[in-house]
Amino acid sequence: MKLPLPLGVSERTLERAIGEFKKIVGEQWASSTQVDRESYNDAYNPGDPLEFVAGGFVAPASVEEVQAVVKIANRLRVPYWPMSTGKNLAYGGAAPLVPGTLVLDLKRMNQVLEVNDDLAYALVEPGVSFFDLFRYLKENGHKLWMSVPGPGWGSIIGNGVERGIGYGYFDDQFANSAGMEIILPDGEMLRAGMGAMANGNSGSLIQAGFGPLVEGLFTQSNYGVVTKMARYLYPEPQTYMSCEINCRSDAGLEMLVETLRPFKMDETIRNPVVISNLELIASFLSVRSQWYQGDGPMPEDRLAIVQEKLALGRWNASFGLFGNEEKVNDSWARIKQAVAVIKDTELHERVYHPGDEILHPRDQSQAGVPSLNEFGLVNWMGSGGHIDFSPVGPMTGKNARELYRLIRRRVHEYGFDHLCGFYCQSRAFRLINTLVFRKDDKSEMKKVRELFSVLIRESAALGYGEYRTHLAYMDSVARSYDFNNNAMLRFQQTLKDAIDPNGVVAPGKSGIWPRSYREQGK
Amino acid sequence: MKLPLPLGVSERTLERAIGEFKKIVGEQWASSTQVDRESYNDAYNPGDPLEFVAGGFVAPASVEEVQAVVKIANRLRVPYWPMSTGKNLAYGGAAPLVPGTLVLDLKRMNQVLEVNDDLAYALVEPGVSFFDLFRYLKENGHKLWMSVPGPGWGSIIGNGVERGIGYGYFDDQFANSAGMEIILPDGEMLRAGMGAMANGNSGSLIQAGFGPLVEGLFTQSNYGVVTKMARYLYPEPQTYMSCEINCRSDAGLEMLVETLRPFKMDETIRNPVVISNLELIASFLSVRSQWYQGDGPMPEDRLAIVQEKLALGRWNASFGLFGNEEKVNDSWARIKQAVAVIKDTELHERVYHPGDEILHPRDQSQAGVPSLNEFGLVNWMGSGGHIDFSPVGPMTGKNARELYRLIRRRVHEYGFDHLCGFYCQSRAFRLINTLVFRKDDKSEMKKVRELFSVLIRESAALGYGEYRTHLAYMDSVARSYDFNNNAMLRFQQTLKDAIDPNGVVAPGKSGIWPRSYREQGK
Repeated sequence: MKLPLPLGVSERTLERAIGEFKKIVGEQWASSTQVDRESYNDAYNPGDPLEFVAGGFVAPASVEEVQAVVKIANRLRVPYWPMSTGKNLAYGGAAPLVPGTLVLDLKRMNQVLEVNDDLAYALVEPGVSFFDLFRYLKENGHKLWMSVPGPGWGSIIGNGVERGIGYGYFDDQFANSAGMEIILPDGEMLRAGMGAMANGNSGSLIQAGFGPLVEGLFTQSNYGVVTKMARYLYPEPQTYMSCEINCRSDAGLEMLVETLRPFKMDETIRNPVVISNLELIASFLSVRSQWYQGDGPMPEDRLAIVQEKLALGRWNASFGLFGNEEKVNDSWARIKQAVAVIKDTELHERVYHPGDEILHPRDQSQAGVPSLNEFGLVNWMGSGGHIDFSPVGPMTGKNARELYRLIRRRVHEYGFDHLCGFYCQSRAFRLINTLVFRKDDKSEMKKVRELFSVLIRESAALGYGEYRTHLAYMDSVARSYDFNNNAMLRFQQTLKDAIDPNGVVAPGKSGIWPRSYREQGK
Repeated sequence: MKLPLPLGVSERTLERAIGEFKKIVGEQWASSTQVDRESYNDAYNPGDPLEFVAGGFVAPASVEEVQAVVKIANRLRVPYWPMSTGKNLAYGGAAPLVPGTLVLDLKRMNQVLEVNDDLAYALVEPGVSFFDLFRYLKENGHKLWMSVPGPGWGSIIGNGVERGIGYGYFDDQFANSAGMEIILPDGEMLRAGMGAMANGNSGSLIQAGFGPLVEGLFTQSNYGVVTKMARYLYPEPQTYMSCEINCRSDAGLEMLVETLRPFKMDETIRNPVVISNLELIASFLSVRSQWYQGDGPMPEDRLAIVQEKLALGRWNASFGLFGNEEKVNDSWARIKQAVAVIKDTELHERVYHPGDEILHPRDQSQAGVPSLNEFGLVNWMGSGGHIDFSPVGPMTGKNARELYRLIRRRVHEYGFDHLCGFYCQSRAFRLINTLVFRKDDKSEMKKVRELFSVLIRESAALGYGEYRTHLAYMDSVARSYDFNNNAMLRFQQTLKDAIDPNGVVAPGKSGIWPRSYREQGK
C-alpha cells in the first residue's frame, strides 16, 4: 500500500525523520512499517480504518527525548500527533487526523513523579493511566481519591488536555489540575503557572502565575506537547454514599434536572450528577439481541420490558455524597425530600467507609476506582464501535428536554438506539450521546456519519455546541462556533501561526490548520 | 509641563487620536488636558505621582465605540491602557505603566446585562462595580450572593481579569466566571467559550468551548479589551455562619494553617480562610499614633497592648460556613474540636439567616456585601498610601512561617510595621503584605521602593512568586519567573506580537513589551 503523506512531506523526508528519531529513542521506538502504522488506527472509526492512518511513530522515553524529537520534526517539517495512551476512544483513539502524520507516542513516559498527601495532588507523566495511578496510590498507602472517567486505561494527562470529566469529587480534569510542563514546537520547555519560576515551590498547587494564563491554550490544541501535569486528589472521606434516583417515566427528566440543580448549585452535590437513559445503562449490562432482534430502534414495548427486567428507570440519576456521616445523611435526607415530588421514582443509596470494598460499578467510578465497567456498551450490537456526540447546554429541564428530543428523533430516524447520559455540572450539562454501530456493516457506518453531521447542524441551530468531537468532525464542529465569522477559530489560527510557524503539531486538530493547509483551502 | 510620550508617538499623533476619538465618543469623553491626564494618576504610587501619568483618556459608552476607538488607535499606533473603574489600588490604580499612554476608560459601560436566578450568574459590563451589582441584586429581589474583595468600588470585570480573589463562596473571581467578550487590537470582537457560537445558549455558564481555551490569555494581560463577562453567584444560603479563630500567640500560625487545611481540602470550608496578623486588623480599626508615636516598627510591648485593647489575636483566622443549619453547625463543631489543640485561642461565631441585617465588616465581606471597611488602613500612618507585596506559597505551616519570617524581618529593617494576611485556598496561600507609607515623606517612599525590590528577590530565591504586582515592579516580577531563561515571558511576548503586532495595548503590562520596546532594550 502506498503511504499517504501529509501536505508538503515526501516519503524520503518521513523516512529521514524516522532514521533520526531512532538515534534519539533507540531502534525499536521509531518505525514506519505498515504494522506499526496501523497499530494506531482508530478501532472505532465509523468508516475505513485506514482513513486516519499514521505515517509511523516515535516513542520517546523522557522529556529530553521529546525535545530532541520535536526539534528534528520542526527542522524537517514533519508533522506529529502527540498521544498519551491512545484511549481517546469515540473521539479518534490514538489516530492522527491527517493520514501519514507520525504519532508521537508518550506511553513510555509513565512515571508517577510525586504524590503529596498534605496538599493532595499527584504529578504525573503522560503515559500514566488511571489504573497506574490508582495502583500507585494503593501500593504506597496514600489515602487520596482520583476522579476517573468511564474507562480507566486512559491517560490522566490525555484526559486532562482533552478537558474530559470524571465521576469523582473534582470532576473537571483540567480545572482541577496545575503544573503543566509543555514542549513547544521548537523544543523549548515551558512551565506554566507558578512553575514558571525555576525553583518555584507552588507549581503543582494552583493555576496562577504572573501575567496571562496559558494553560488553557494547551487543551484540545495543537500548540505543543504536554509532558507533565499535576492532578488534584480528594482526601478519602469518612463516609461516601452513592445515590441513585431511578425515574420510571420518561417525563421525569425535566423534574430531575430542576430538582437536583439547586443541590449542585449550593454544592450539596459536588461530583457530576449523571442522568443516564435506560438504553445507556442497558448497554452496560446486556446486549441488544437479548431484548430485540428486529431492525431499527428498540420499540417502546421492548424498552418497557428492559426497564422491568433490569429494574431501571427511563432516567437514572447517579451522584455521590462525600464527607462525615452527619453531613452525608443530612444531605441525602434533604435531597430525598425534594425528589419526593417526582412521580414514579425509586431511590437507592449505598454507604461506604474507609476499608470497605467497593464493588458496584458506578460506586467505583465515583470513588475514583478505575475500571472497564462501561466498556460493555460496544457489544450492544456485537462487533461494535461508537462515536460520541457531546453537546453542552444550560442546566434547565426545558433545555434538557429540547436537546434530548431533537437528538433522539434523529437517532431513531436513522435506525439506531439512542444511548445517552447528561453529565450535569452546576450551570451546564454535557449530553453524551453514544452512537453505537456495527463495525462490519458499511451502510450502518455511513448512516452514523450522516447522522452525526445532521446532529451537529441541528443542535447548533438551537444554540448547542459540542465540547469535544471525533477527528472526522473537528472541522464541522469548529465551524459551528460561528460567532463573528468564526472569530474564535481565526484567533486560534493566529496563535497557531505564532506558536507553531512550521505547522508540525497535529495539523487539523480542533479545526486548527497550519497556514500551508489553509492556503490549500482548508 | 511637557507631555511625556510613549515610544514612537508624537504629540501631534496623540492629539490627532484624541480628535478622532471625540468624533466617536463625543467631545467631553476624550481629552488630553493636564487635569484630565492627572485624574488617572495612581494616588498610591510610592514616588512622584506623575511617574505613571496618562497622555489623556477616551471613554466609550458601548462595545461599538470601543471597537471604533481601538481601530483608530491601532491605525495611528497610539497605545492605550484599558481600565474598568480604576480601583486597582496598591497595584497602580487607574494609571498606565508607560507615561503618555492613553487611558481607555470603560466606566461608562456600566450595565448589568442579565441576572439569572436559576443558573445563578450575572453578566456585566466593565464599569459595573461590586456596589452597582449589589444594589441591582437587592433592588430586583435576586437572592444571589456575590464574592466581594476588600473595597467594593472596584469593577467586577477588572477584579476578574486581574485574577483577584473575594471573601465569598466562589472566591476566585476569574475561575468562577465565563462568557468573556473581548475586543482585539484590530477591533474584531471575540467571544470566548460557548459564546463563540453566534446563537449559543451556554456562553455565560461554563468555561468550555471547542479547541484551545483562550479566556486565561485575557487576564493580567495586554492582548485585548474585555467588554463583557459573566460572574457566578451563590444562592442565598439558609444559614451563614461567620467564624473567627483568634490566636494570641505568634507561634499559632503554623498550627492554624495545618489545622484548617484539611477543612479547606475537603471543602468543609469553601471560601478563603483569611489569616490576618494583628497589625493588619489594627489598621482597619485604629490609627498607629493611638498606640505608638516612635519611629520604626511598633515594638513588641506595644503590640501586646494593641492586642489586649482590641481583643485580637496575633493571628486572626476568618472564614464562613454556608448551607443549612445542620450542616453549618456540624462543620463548626468539627472545626472547633480540631482547633482545640491550638493554645491560646479564642473562637467566635456569628450566625445569620435570610433577612438578617449583617453589620460586622468581615461578615459583610463573606456574605457578598461590598463596603469600604478595610479602606481605613491607608490612615494607619496618616496621609497614607500602600502597595501590596503578594507572593503565593504552599499551604503548609512550614511555608507560611518561612515566608512570613523573611518578609517581616525585611519590613522591620526598613522601619515599617508589617501588616499582612494569608488568603488560604486549598493547596496554596497568597500572602498579601500591605506596605503602608506616608505619601508626604519622600524618604519613606524611597525606602518602600527599595524594600519591595528586596522582597521580590529574596522571596523568589526561596521559590515564592507574586501573583500580581504594582506597575513599578511588573518587569522585576515577570523576570523573577525565570525558568528556562524566562520561557514564560518569552512565550507571552510571542503571543503579544501575534495578537497585537502594533503594540498598542498597555505596553509593559505584566512585563510584556511590544517588539519596538524590546528592540530598545526593554
